[in-house]
Amino acid sequence: MTTIGVFDSGFGGLTVLRELLPLVPGAHYLYLGDSARLPYGSKSQATIARYAVESARFLVGRGAQHLVIACNTASALAMSDIQRTVEVPVTGVIEPAVEAALRSHPNAQVLVLATTATVHSGAYRLNCAARGLHAIEKACPLLVPLVEEGWLDHPVTREVLRIYLEEALAICTPEAVLLGCTHYPLIAPAIESTLRDLNSRAEHIDSARATALAVACSIQRSNTSAEAPGTALPATPATFQCFATDSVEKFERLGAHFLGRSVGPVQLVDLGG
Amino acid sequence: MTTIGVFDSGFGGLTVLRELLPLVPGAHYLYLGDSARLPYGSKSQATIARYAVESARFLVGRGAQHLVIACNTASALAMSDIQRTVEVPVTGVIEPAVEAALRSHPNAQVLVLATTATVHSGAYRLNCAARGLHAIEKACPLLVPLVEEGWLDHPVTREVLRIYLEEALAICTPEAVLLGCTHYPLIAPAIESTLRDLNSRAEHIDSARATALAVACSIQRSNTSAEAPGTALPATPATFQCFATDSVEKFERLGAHFLGRSVGPVQLVDLGG
Repeated sequence: MTTIGVFDSGFGGLTVLRELLPLVPGAHYLYLGDSARLPYGSKSQATIARYAVESARFLVGRGAQHLVIACNTASALAMSDIQRTVEVPVTGVIEPAVEAALRSHPNAQVLVLATTATVHSGAYRLNCAARGLHAIEKACPLLVPLVEEGWLDHPVTREVLRIYLEEALAICTPEAVLLGCTHYPLIAPAIESTLRDLNSRAEHIDSARATALAVACSIQRSNTSAEAPGTALPATPATFQCFATDSVEKFERLGAHFLGRSVGPVQLVDLGG
Repeated sequence: MTTIGVFDSGFGGLTVLRELLPLVPGAHYLYLGDSARLPYGSKSQATIARYAVESARFLVGRGAQHLVIACNTASALAMSDIQRTVEVPVTGVIEPAVEAALRSHPNAQVLVLATTATVHSGAYRLNCAARGLHAIEKACPLLVPLVEEGWLDHPVTREVLRIYLEEALAICTPEAVLLGCTHYPLIAPAIESTLRDLNSRAEHIDSARATALAVACSIQRSNTSAEAPGTALPATPATFQCFATDSVEKFERLGAHFLGRSVGPVQLVDLGG
């Protein structure tokens, strides 16, 4: 059975795990939320890289054969540090999301909504440019706190979205809006309806779903080459174990919203931070 | 010259330093913002205590003779751990704020606005109860992100305040509203005007100002006993040096809003987290 390590600074990456479970059902998942040091989105590159590398080492040490960086900020700022550190295949969230945008909207303007650190990294802009997409990035620092407050369909969230999207649409006319943070799928309906209210026809692209698909394809490829051509994935149900670096009680309570089911008993780990 | 160490998880504690500078002008200040690991407000007691103790040790190691825990969450959850670790006098923000409430509104109902972790600790409720004040605590997790977004006088901030305060005023009729987070003084005018809109006559009590006064009195007392009775504080101007565990650029930029003047060159330090 393949063991897949999924890592995020908190609960957000559970939206990626949620998409992975039906796509790669015959796997054992290890999920690590580095909740003692969240949010990464407002921190510096050096600090984020150090935290992400420690987390990646932990998951590989526990047996992960594939690593999913289910955190836009860590994917933007620590991908090459992680790849240098571990020897297993690593999938981040940025390339799959950009490729999904390219498939559905080639040559289009893409609006990327993300945290401040992700925007400052320029990772989406550079990745899009390399594929002929023109990306405009918009930092949305209040969206993560609003999702964590549970205000998913709330007048304040809609008003904040209206302000952020109005500012962005004043300088671009995108065909696609890329949700560049794993918290944002939980407010995708509010984002869509705000876009309609502002007379935009742009469609949202969910980086969690795009990433899960990329991981499924990568595992299918590596299983095929390592085992026997055409070997089907085993049909056993997926199992998972969650780890957190802070309060497991909060993780168990909030995590269920992101995963769409109980996260099970969460194990507290100390990464020395 | 007395050296005073001031500690917070981020920039918020600069509101305490701002009040201290005119009250204790003849001192050298060391300010540490543990910005690599902020916010403390959403983390567990064990994690907060570990971070706060490391920060306290750093400041005492740099020569601090008095320690100010200018962070409500750390004061609520790590005060006894810090006092056990260091040998210098330690002043937190909770007792001074509760005493200020008691002086102006004895026997009254007090509404405490704070982060989730501070509310869960029950520190204000217990401190108030010990002094005959009845405290109702209200967690306001969105206020820190709104202040950090710079939306100090903004319709969204006023709407969030209206929601939080309306929920609180439905179950109590306070005479005083205690700002139990060092970020909140920056939106004190919005809090006051929202209270008036909701027909409350409650006055706000600023824990930053109350804490600065308590520190000034403590230093006056210790100077008097250690040196000579009646020795006046030296009239030299205060000097300060700021340290941060993450991006000094962001600290220098945002810190100026909290301090009300330039924070000067900030030195990056690594507490190993």
